[in-house]
Amino acid sequence: MTRRILIVDDVPTNRIILKVKLNAACYEAVQAASGSEALELARRHPPDLVLLDYMMQGMDGVAVCRALRADPATAQVPVIMFTASGDDSAKIAALRAGADDFMLKPIDDKILLARIRNLLRTRSGELAESSAAMDGFGLAEPAAAFDAPGRVALIAPRPETALRWRGALAPHLPGPITLMGREAALDGSGGPVDLYIIMEDKGGPGSGLQLMSELRSRPGSANAAICLVLPASAQADAATALDLGADDVLRDGCDAAEAALRAQALIARKRAGDRQRARLAEGLRLAVTDPLTGLHNRRYALPALGRMLADAANQQRPCAVLALDIDRFKSVNDRFGHAVGDAVLAEVAARLSSALRPGDLIARIGGEEFLVALPDVTEGDALALAERLRRSVAERPFAVVADEAGLQVTVSIGLALASPAHAADAVLACADRALMAAKADGRDQVITSRQSAA
Amino acid sequence: MTRRILIVDDVPTNRIILKVKLNAACYEAVQAASGSEALELARRHPPDLVLLDYMMQGMDGVAVCRALRADPATAQVPVIMFTASGDDSAKIAALRAGADDFMLKPIDDKILLARIRNLLRTRSGELAESSAAMDGFGLAEPAAAFDAPGRVALIAPRPETALRWRGALAPHLPGPITLMGREAALDGSGGPVDLYIIMEDKGGPGSGLQLMSELRSRPGSANAAICLVLPASAQADAATALDLGADDVLRDGCDAAEAALRAQALIARKRAGDRQRARLAEGLRLAVTDPLTGLHNRRYALPALGRMLADAANQQRPCAVLALDIDRFKSVNDRFGHAVGDAVLAEVAARLSSALRPGDLIARIGGEEFLVALPDVTEGDALALAERLRRSVAERPFAVVADEAGLQVTVSIGLALASPAHAADAVLACADRALMAAKADGRDQVITSRQSAA
Repeated sequence: MTRRILIVDDVPTNRIILKVKLNAACYEAVQAASGSEALELARRHPPDLVLLDYMMQGMDGVAVCRALRADPATAQVPVIMFTASGDDSAKIAALRAGADDFMLKPIDDKILLARIRNLLRTRSGELAESSAAMDGFGLAEPAAAFDAPGRVALIAPRPETALRWRGALAPHLPGPITLMGREAALDGSGGPVDLYIIMEDKGGPGSGLQLMSELRSRPGSANAAICLVLPASAQADAATALDLGADDVLRDGCDAAEAALRAQALIARKRAGDRQRARLAEGLRLAVTDPLTGLHNRRYALPALGRMLADAANQQRPCAVLALDIDRFKSVNDRFGHAVGDAVLAEVAARLSSALRPGDLIARIGGEEFLVALPDVTEGDALALAERLRRSVAERPFAVVADEAGLQVTVSIGLALASPAHAADAVLACADRALMAAKADGRDQVITSRQSAA
Repeated sequence: MTRRILIVDDVPTNRIILKVKLNAACYEAVQAASGSEALELARRHPPDLVLLDYMMQGMDGVAVCRALRADPATAQVPVIMFTASGDDSAKIAALRAGADDFMLKPIDDKILLARIRNLLRTRSGELAESSAAMDGFGLAEPAAAFDAPGRVALIAPRPETALRWRGALAPHLPGPITLMGREAALDGSGGPVDLYIIMEDKGGPGSGLQLMSELRSRPGSANAAICLVLPASAQADAATALDLGADDVLRDGCDAAEAALRAQALIARKRAGDRQRARLAEGLRLAVTDPLTGLHNRRYALPALGRMLADAANQQRPCAVLALDIDRFKSVNDRFGHAVGDAVLAEVAARLSSALRPGDLIARIGGEEFLVALPDVTEGDALALAERLRRSVAERPFAVVADEAGLQVTVSIGLALASPAHAADAVLACADRALMAAKADGRDQVITSRQSAA
């Protein structure tokens, strides 16, 4: 359960000081005295986070960071780099190599621990668990939709500050950078945003922190990346900002190249989250989808039918249920093989779907069996719709065989009207009996349950 | 996108003051002048949150809150109740009716807005989205496992404080209440906890807040409920605590019955989150599971096989793939019907599974086709395992028909050894060719791809 942090530094004293601090904060600390030792340790058993010295004998911090990022096993492990004496170019090199943060020694313990918490928190959230489960699926990530350049919103108390920042960032970022008011950000009228950069007001301290908390509580911005820009005088607030959920904290007046690199990293991380969410949604969709026809499967259909019948009963509205079966389907498989049989199933599903109204329910509930539920219809309407479904299949042959004339396919349909007293099973059983009557009576027809009972 | 908050108060001035505050914070405010009007509005279009006056002409706040909780459409909507003059009994009545918080007028705007953000945030998180998707599935919630009484941990700077709280809470809470140290909470050695109650130290202000942030960043406690107890002198920290992710804030010295009611509500909410996470995991599991046999489905099997072969190639270890098919399965369906055919599939799956080693992969990839992958085996081991699978099916008849002698079922198996140069498709194709050779050669046997090529 305890998080393991790898300390990489070639000076033993530095490692020991860090180790004591981390142990006091209840982290497990592992030490590496060189870059190559660090990479070997990390590869064998990836740590939860890496604290990495910039200047080391042999392989330096930037090279270690690049190697960690290049290995799939460690590519996602957060890295904080630090140095005793470094100029802006060291910082830029570290960020460019993929470090999540860069700190100057002596390190402020409060900010270091807040940054560690912040980086670890995003990896222990609710999404992380499902994501790990999803990794087992091997579902292709729907990447293309997320390739548009990131949208950045700048929120500053004074327009000249925002304009200065836009001027500095624009050459480095490909996407639009919008100056946005607090209200437009909160009520969503500013449009969708990937990264909010919020300038803390020197006059009203804490207003930026509060806006961030507001954005986190609103559905449109809960998952956006948020970067807080603090005046040089308020660096102590950085720890609070990180604990409140800021994804990064910048000092007002920092180098434009640094700000742009951090912004790019935040946008990339936010997009990765979007992809994970999309993959999760896709995983859930697949659980209720028949892969062959793309229709809902039996697992989805029966509870959905139950809900539809309950709604109909509550609202005193009629509802019809159809049991539908492809006629002599087994002989298709026997004569032409499974591939043709599959093509017939897919084409029947497509024809039925396009003949239905929005809001109607259709599902494949067995090999060649379909369930259709029609809310809010009279018996006459239901019969007409069922006839339309039957005709949509029978009216023209299926181009699924080599024979130019195609294959003639028909369906039989049993129709039952739901009455408020009926449970889903009972209505379905009525429709099934009517379907059997339709089969017995010669197929390619619709029979209502009243007819079949008569 | 803007969140809608329903204000219920029979004094117009009060409603208008609240509405102005909410609008300034970019919320949409809807007003109701009586309890019955509130219920009608809420039922028609459930708001995101309700601010509810305790004392009203006609239906009072407690009755309105109970009615909201009783209606499935509004049962989950957060409710904050407030009153101008109320004693502890009013507070207890409000919490007992299901209110999430109770505030005395005049209301501190900062705390009110922080509480609103806090309550809305839990409903716009990552889990909320997937949960909404899951609602469409109608999956039964796995409730039973979560029925054990909640485990509470008390973390206090001084043991006498913790003992006093335990004495006050114990009569009201059925589950264990453990006194826990900061380290035991952070490194997980204190065991699993549903609710952490953290006493803020008067000496070191902010240490409770920091501990909370630490717990939120650790996987074992990220999803636990956390309640912060602040000294009467530090009530201003309540807003910060709520924004930092506290689920509730208590004043030290508050009534034991109130603390117990809030603790119960927090435990119940945490358990509801657990159930949603379990439901989500179950939904994802279903996406890769064949409902008939409980084995993995084709969607899971092919990427999993690819990963297994890649690992084997990386580690220079052998790996075998079996294509397995039930002999003359169609005749089972034809002679005995689909129900018996389904029972045969399920029994074959069960027998194969129990003959495999942990870590082996088995999946149903078609009607009567199974895929088995065996990591880390020599050709001799793989052949022996394949023979064991074949025998497990053939060795005794299946008790799936009325006939006392049962039904004799056999399987044919094609075996291919993966070489590092092989892609998953190629290995599977080899196994398939060997399977066809096994079928052609009389069924109920194992053929290796080398034999079939010879």
